[in-house]
Amino acid sequence: MSRIFAFFLLPLCLMAEEGMWTFDNFPAAVVGKKYGFTPSQAWLDRVRLASVRLAEGCSSSFVSPNGLLMTNHHCAATCIAQLSSAEKDYMKLGYSAKTPAEEAKCPRQEANVLIDIGNVTARIEKATKGLDGKAALEARKAETARVEKECATSDAVRCEVVSLYGGGVYALYKYQRYQDVRLVFAPEFSIAFFGGDPDNFMFPRYNLDATFFRVYENGQPLKTPHHFKWSKGGAKEGALTFVSGHPGGTNRKDTIAMLETERDFGMLHRLAYLSEYRGMLAQFQTKGEEQERIAQDDLNHVENSLKVYKGEERALVEKSFFSQKQAEERDFQKRVQADAKLRAQYGKAWDEIAAVQAKQRELYYPYIYLERQYGFRSQLFSHARRLLRMAEEFDKPNEKRLEEFADAWKPTLKQAVLSPAPIYAELEIEELAFSLTKLRELLGPDDPTVRALFGKRGPREIAMDAVKNSKLGSVETRKALLEGGKQALASSTDSMVALARMVDPYARAIRKRMEEEVESVLTSNMEKLARARFAVYGTSLYPDATFTLRLSYGSVKGWTENGKVVPPFTIFGGTYERHTGSFPFALPQSWLDAKDKLNPQTRFNFVTNNDIIGGNSGSPVINKEGEVVGLIFDGNIHSLGGNYGFDETLNRAVAVHSDAIKEALKKVYGADRVLEELN
Amino acid sequence: MSRIFAFFLLPLCLMAEEGMWTFDNFPAAVVGKKYGFTPSQAWLDRVRLASVRLAEGCSSSFVSPNGLLMTNHHCAATCIAQLSSAEKDYMKLGYSAKTPAEEAKCPRQEANVLIDIGNVTARIEKATKGLDGKAALEARKAETARVEKECATSDAVRCEVVSLYGGGVYALYKYQRYQDVRLVFAPEFSIAFFGGDPDNFMFPRYNLDATFFRVYENGQPLKTPHHFKWSKGGAKEGALTFVSGHPGGTNRKDTIAMLETERDFGMLHRLAYLSEYRGMLAQFQTKGEEQERIAQDDLNHVENSLKVYKGEERALVEKSFFSQKQAEERDFQKRVQADAKLRAQYGKAWDEIAAVQAKQRELYYPYIYLERQYGFRSQLFSHARRLLRMAEEFDKPNEKRLEEFADAWKPTLKQAVLSPAPIYAELEIEELAFSLTKLRELLGPDDPTVRALFGKRGPREIAMDAVKNSKLGSVETRKALLEGGKQALASSTDSMVALARMVDPYARAIRKRMEEEVESVLTSNMEKLARARFAVYGTSLYPDATFTLRLSYGSVKGWTENGKVVPPFTIFGGTYERHTGSFPFALPQSWLDAKDKLNPQTRFNFVTNNDIIGGNSGSPVINKEGEVVGLIFDGNIHSLGGNYGFDETLNRAVAVHSDAIKEALKKVYGADRVLEELN
Repeated sequence: MSRIFAFFLLPLCLMAEEGMWTFDNFPAAVVGKKYGFTPSQAWLDRVRLASVRLAEGCSSSFVSPNGLLMTNHHCAATCIAQLSSAEKDYMKLGYSAKTPAEEAKCPRQEANVLIDIGNVTARIEKATKGLDGKAALEARKAETARVEKECATSDAVRCEVVSLYGGGVYALYKYQRYQDVRLVFAPEFSIAFFGGDPDNFMFPRYNLDATFFRVYENGQPLKTPHHFKWSKGGAKEGALTFVSGHPGGTNRKDTIAMLETERDFGMLHRLAYLSEYRGMLAQFQTKGEEQERIAQDDLNHVENSLKVYKGEERALVEKSFFSQKQAEERDFQKRVQADAKLRAQYGKAWDEIAAVQAKQRELYYPYIYLERQYGFRSQLFSHARRLLRMAEEFDKPNEKRLEEFADAWKPTLKQAVLSPAPIYAELEIEELAFSLTKLRELLGPDDPTVRALFGKRGPREIAMDAVKNSKLGSVETRKALLEGGKQALASSTDSMVALARMVDPYARAIRKRMEEEVESVLTSNMEKLARARFAVYGTSLYPDATFTLRLSYGSVKGWTENGKVVPPFTIFGGTYERHTGSFPFALPQSWLDAKDKLNPQTRFNFVTNNDIIGGNSGSPVINKEGEVVGLIFDGNIHSLGGNYGFDETLNRAVAVHSDAIKEALKKVYGADRVLEELN
Repeated sequence: MSRIFAFFLLPLCLMAEEGMWTFDNFPAAVVGKKYGFTPSQAWLDRVRLASVRLAEGCSSSFVSPNGLLMTNHHCAATCIAQLSSAEKDYMKLGYSAKTPAEEAKCPRQEANVLIDIGNVTARIEKATKGLDGKAALEARKAETARVEKECATSDAVRCEVVSLYGGGVYALYKYQRYQDVRLVFAPEFSIAFFGGDPDNFMFPRYNLDATFFRVYENGQPLKTPHHFKWSKGGAKEGALTFVSGHPGGTNRKDTIAMLETERDFGMLHRLAYLSEYRGMLAQFQTKGEEQERIAQDDLNHVENSLKVYKGEERALVEKSFFSQKQAEERDFQKRVQADAKLRAQYGKAWDEIAAVQAKQRELYYPYIYLERQYGFRSQLFSHARRLLRMAEEFDKPNEKRLEEFADAWKPTLKQAVLSPAPIYAELEIEELAFSLTKLRELLGPDDPTVRALFGKRGPREIAMDAVKNSKLGSVETRKALLEGGKQALASSTDSMVALARMVDPYARAIRKRMEEEVESVLTSNMEKLARARFAVYGTSLYPDATFTLRLSYGSVKGWTENGKVVPPFTIFGGTYERHTGSFPFALPQSWLDAKDKLNPQTRFNFVTNNDIIGGNSGSPVINKEGEVVGLIFDGNIHSLGGNYGFDETLNRAVAVHSDAIKEALKKVYGADRVLEELN
């Protein structure tokens, strides 16, 4: 409980190693000064083009000229589980394609390569000039849709307007889009996630959390001249390391009022919700082997999120941390108030953000339960709502739609509708019944939406009816509804479609209120604060993470905790010492068999002080030659507070060592095809 | 989110109606002044002798001369469930003894009548004089055991030294003890807890949360000349009401440092733990009808606790509340610091309490998981540990034992060991596996105790082995071990005995540390603050609740919330409007059948502004004539913050109206035997 946080107050005071930098504002000179290596523009471009975003929420990179893509097993797990069956459980068995033909297409996966970064701040500002609140929101949305549509000249291009620095900069990120992603190699879950939830976010660690995909184009492996070569010897203590990946989101620039809402309200709900969900899923798994298999992927996600939120909450309730954040805010406010012009333009932003918190809390539960689907945890429901909204939204002009139905998203939506991923009715019923129970609990049985939704029925009855009497599990059915459009959906008697149809007006209404009454206020005031921050602290800042490509630098380095030194490396030998034979400390047979062949001194996992966060999973760790020395798969427990601020003394990124990957491919798995490509 | 809390700063500013008063310090004059009725000593004595504590954690009262005891259904639920089987589920069916012979003995229930209150402060203070820390702790424990033993002249007398005002007063509570408590009448769970968890702590409300026991002595109904008569017409709006019962515990005198530990640490863990437990149990129930039945009682307890903690946490994170508490503490500190003598004696107490919080957090998880059995949720384990410790502790002199094994507790312990309550292996396995999983999570897989406990096994393997290879489910087995004592337990090969035996040294060690390093510091400093409080604010104060008999006064009164008036009564008619047919909004068949016979205008539930808290469940609401006008079964959602402070504008006690009980007994159940006794 004695974490000391150190945050930046001034750009000149930036902690070494802090920062998830955009590629167009990387502090190359700072790195050069500290490490004697100054990344050139060419170097940055090469790294950018070898870095790949997995659109569902992870990072990865090309590691061969033939589209071989390295990521984490936990980033590939949904695909692996979807390709599995009761008879062939690749999560348990692992997967190794012996021939190109055996490379198995993921039902739903999209890979994005960032080919260009533009600045559209002026365009967006012009569109919203003189407007505020709801009008500004609509204008911003419309202009964003226009920019994205102009940019995306084909389905193979994905364009996103990204709000950086809380709206201080609007950037246009242009990606090459690939939707044919195939599984090449995956180890067993039991070694990929050895130590399971107890060891998650912990170190020392012993995980082979690595998987290889291959990106295809027109049925052929993609040619990828920009890729990372494998280093000789991998990560070394003290050596400069870069992490190129897609941190999902941070809240380092949130105001104190926002952090308080998070700490005292939103987080408490999420901790309770996810804990209960976890208990439910774990008990569901005791029903049998097949139930254990089909619920594992969801359980992993729930447990991981839960641990993340617990870590974040731990940071927020820590007094020294929060005082530091308060001190930062006071310093910022003082500087703004001290300048008449800044005060006039931005001085009220904090108060306006604070004032809207009560409204946010009021709308929060209906919003997340009805619109963010906390109340409808069901694949079938997601399909039903997606189909309904696609039909409705595509009828509207591009710039008038809900943003995730803009033309730029069409290929992603279509892939989702037509995904052949299996859906398990038994699990669907339990998850839907659970989430409906929570919906009724949080909104209350007397809420008008709850009354309309439940009528005389209970959560379980609704869930059973909706799941059992739905045909949306079939791709053909969904395809027919997609093609049939509005008419087909309006007349469908499918029970899940009916449920989604019934709920949707309520969900849309609460979303509209949340956007107009809360988000519009937050967005316009966060934009003001962003501009004020540039004015006060200059522009050599990095923006909060936004699941866009970032580069961080640092070095291989352990840390000291409660007077105890934590060394930066673990070795293969330690894995066998930790093996008990009982899940999650049970090694797969392949590793038990290979024990004598493996060099016990091989470095397995390591830590660096690179500044990363969720979404960075699967990021390559590279050296200054741009070679792979490791593969990010986690942060230590302290890194979770990194959502709100970075503390170099304790926050660490956790990675698989490149030597471990190679040695395991060779001696445990005999995965020669992959090995050859890496050499 | 706009609760305004109003706490007392000075005794003269005491909010009307605030206070859970001991019977020897009741503010009769204040009541007389406000309500025109001044309770006499004789009145107080009669009320005290008709009030009954249920030793497992509830309140009740005698309502006939023949030992008929009224309490809540939820206070009787464990007994009712224990008397039930798959074939005869009295939770579902209700229970009504047609003859005295059908009155069924609860496997484990103890009723206590408070026959005397003494003051032993001087004795305890003398024993601890000049000592502090560990020495004071041991001296206090030893003297307490001596006092209790001297007082308890037979097993029929139970004596407890109670620390009031955080140690400002040590009182000796002497109870008549009755262990033969039989079930006479219970309605169906579905009407006792109509609205279930969603409606729990809510109002308007429609619950027949009432059950009748009878206390027996020597095989005959106990003669109870002191009992409450039934009122004519019951509770009326605005009328003076008294609640005589046993509030379990409040923390209104805790320092800010203690509240912060609770808010930022302990509570977060409990919310997550109980939420996960809830999800587990609810999913376990989907395995079948029998599983649904056997897990219901535990689930009810878990859900109720969870809602309580959520309400308490909501109060603690509310800024206006916490600032008020901080202001109180500052005022108190200022007054102490302003007086040289007080400052010298008590001035450091706050800092010392604050300083020990870090140690408390450090020891908290091992303490609650190993010693408070968060890690061993199993009836069989409880039996095993109890037997082990009885054998070990009874070998020691009375004053050297763990306090709950002092001679004064022997009858309660023996009843627990020999309870014929059924134990369900399937549920035991799941609960033990769950709690062991949490134990490993919170202590960490590398904790030495965890390593010793788990070895090569996982939580489920340990639980399966311990439950399946234990014979402790049999009363005979336990009786033999009880009689066999230390020798029998040391040589027992029973797997649960072996587990408890293995864990016990670790549990005892961490308890010792918690007591010596944390509790001793808290106790001695809370004693100082209690004395300082008397010195500064006088002695017309009520102590925090301690599950000892208290009397609160108030009146039948609704409240206003967000501008909306909540009237104080509900009526039978509303129940039928709320019925949907789906659990928990499904009325039992008996109520559907009786609909036409019932007067829909009959008052069903009502609220008062009496100051109550958990443990008050089952307390009678009486008028100034000492007649029953209602039966406390709940508080409204605002009352949960009452753990830390009472807000008369919003906090309400919720009760079943006496008319409703009588009308239901007559027209729904034809429970003539009970009715006759009430008339």
